[in-house]
Amino acid sequence: MSGFAFAVDSRDGRARAGRLRTPHGEFETPVFMPVGTAAAVKAVLHRDLAEIGARILLANTYHLMLRPGDGLVRSLGGLHGFTGWQQPFLTDSGGYQVFSLAALRRLDEEGVRFRSHLDGSEQLLSPERSMEVQQNLGADIAMAFDECPPGDAARDVIEAATARTTRWARRSRDAHDRKDQWLFGIVQGGVHLDLREESTRALVEIGFPGYAVGGLAVGEPKPGRDRVLEALDLLLPEERPRYLMGVGTPVDLIDGVARGIDMFDCVMPTRNARNGQLFTSRGRISIRNARYRDDPRPPDPDCRCHTCRSASRAYLRHLHLAGEMAAATLMSLHNLFFYVDMMEAMRQSIRLCRFESWRGETLRRLEAGDQDGS
Amino acid sequence: MSGFAFAVDSRDGRARAGRLRTPHGEFETPVFMPVGTAAAVKAVLHRDLAEIGARILLANTYHLMLRPGDGLVRSLGGLHGFTGWQQPFLTDSGGYQVFSLAALRRLDEEGVRFRSHLDGSEQLLSPERSMEVQQNLGADIAMAFDECPPGDAARDVIEAATARTTRWARRSRDAHDRKDQWLFGIVQGGVHLDLREESTRALVEIGFPGYAVGGLAVGEPKPGRDRVLEALDLLLPEERPRYLMGVGTPVDLIDGVARGIDMFDCVMPTRNARNGQLFTSRGRISIRNARYRDDPRPPDPDCRCHTCRSASRAYLRHLHLAGEMAAATLMSLHNLFFYVDMMEAMRQSIRLCRFESWRGETLRRLEAGDQDGS
Repeated sequence: MSGFAFAVDSRDGRARAGRLRTPHGEFETPVFMPVGTAAAVKAVLHRDLAEIGARILLANTYHLMLRPGDGLVRSLGGLHGFTGWQQPFLTDSGGYQVFSLAALRRLDEEGVRFRSHLDGSEQLLSPERSMEVQQNLGADIAMAFDECPPGDAARDVIEAATARTTRWARRSRDAHDRKDQWLFGIVQGGVHLDLREESTRALVEIGFPGYAVGGLAVGEPKPGRDRVLEALDLLLPEERPRYLMGVGTPVDLIDGVARGIDMFDCVMPTRNARNGQLFTSRGRISIRNARYRDDPRPPDPDCRCHTCRSASRAYLRHLHLAGEMAAATLMSLHNLFFYVDMMEAMRQSIRLCRFESWRGETLRRLEAGDQDGS
Repeated sequence: MSGFAFAVDSRDGRARAGRLRTPHGEFETPVFMPVGTAAAVKAVLHRDLAEIGARILLANTYHLMLRPGDGLVRSLGGLHGFTGWQQPFLTDSGGYQVFSLAALRRLDEEGVRFRSHLDGSEQLLSPERSMEVQQNLGADIAMAFDECPPGDAARDVIEAATARTTRWARRSRDAHDRKDQWLFGIVQGGVHLDLREESTRALVEIGFPGYAVGGLAVGEPKPGRDRVLEALDLLLPEERPRYLMGVGTPVDLIDGVARGIDMFDCVMPTRNARNGQLFTSRGRISIRNARYRDDPRPPDPDCRCHTCRSASRAYLRHLHLAGEMAAATLMSLHNLFFYVDMMEAMRQSIRLCRFESWRGETLRRLEAGDQDGS
């Protein structure tokens, strides 16, 4: 595990600020990771991601094993060589996508057999195959292969999936041997605190350098999610990074940090940008709204991003309605900057022991303006 | 016409190098103008256009009058205020697009009545309306409203269109009164040298600060085009800029410069990029070609653009096949850099009186590699 280190250096309530070092550089936590599903963040160049302060990208195992193929990526130097992004990468396990995207799944103890959504070819994802793919992709951080049941699944379904996730975590650990890649375990258990506790104890017994929280933000009620995170904060080893997968809105990120989470990823800033929705310090705005037709103001007058320094709401609205790719690029850049910048504000507030007051002010401002207002 | 000036400062054969000053800055000629149809160059941000050395953009009158509307653009400070691009703009007259895009055209001496391709609304483009739109858009250079018949039209059709273009040029001049905008006349006449001569003499008699050559690159044979340009070189005032509209391939640009042309625009570098075709110093390559699947080389090993410094052919091919917008952005950036850089090489060779040897070498290299080779 050479080249890796994680340390929490400040605490404010349950919120933590720290640093995670990888073979491709160090970043501060809590951190937001932009999602580059097919080894590229949609509509945004790596250069611009670096400029807005992104320090680690997520790439999807499921998509990349199907296209261009993990063997090809490996032969071109792994994700870093293939994409040219020289800062850290994290790959997910493929588990979540295979359940949400692939057709004709057959799940058994070995793994998941499915047909590719691209060409119908038969494929297998198992703990061993996920480790093979992720080691070929060569991200700095890989994920154990897990079973992620739907958010509304019955308790016995979640219980079985959680037990299987533990067995698969052990097989994942046994199949993983890259020393320049950290492998994180994934806690499952839905909103059932006893299952979460069981899952966490089993994973900690196996022992991972970091722990992800899966199976949240899949449709469960928000209070249930918050209770799980509060319980996990007491169960997870303090000195290990904690990653809340696939979450979420700005408020979700703040609420996660408030419960001790260090890492987040979500497609929301880029996907919403392509749909014309901008996150601002005063709530969301939908650029399609006719009120912005002749609005000369930038998306967020308080924002320092390239988009807010160079484009008006009127121009962005025009580009969006005209179907110009520049609309997706400019609005994705803004939304990602908003997320990355908000994480920086959280880190600072934690280091200054002002997280709770920052949180209160920020939530009030976000919620007050959240009606295409301002 | 304050703020404007044009001067040819070097000649080599018929090729000319010079400078054109506008209220939004000066640029060197011969120049290539990237096309920003809807007030944005497709898939490329203004910042990146400036970085690759683009110094003037073209925007389309036809598209912008329909969406977002020239009145809106005017109210937001014209194209410069609306888009944030602070260097020169040129707008076309709308003539070419109304003939190629609009439905239900009715052409008479007044102008062209048509239905918008966006919402079916009834619209008129006439010399007076084109001037109104272009003055609202506020580009540094506007075009007289012309009739552009198809390349394969019969001589009598072209003759009538040329005569009408002259009458419309006079009406355009009479309707144009912005002092901070240059209005260019457009020479028509197909490949008929006598019609071209008549058109040129009439336009020069009206008197414009610059002259565009329309009605070429619309399907006519290349030798016919070359003969027209050679004839026009003798007919057009030497001290005025000459703009060959809608042209073309790298070879077309070289051949145009060799015949005294100063300005070019074309969608080819951006459109071809979106289709996966890259221009390189050794000919074109189609990134979809399976031979590039695992090719770690940049698109053009001799190129200094951001794309060639950061992306392999294998990565671009993957992004293109995956439908990632970054493919269009990176390849458009490269192709535009290739065009802009080639113009710079031409200007230098003209100033050093080495244009013909540069041209010979360049054409040999372009043509030798033009089979997905290298």
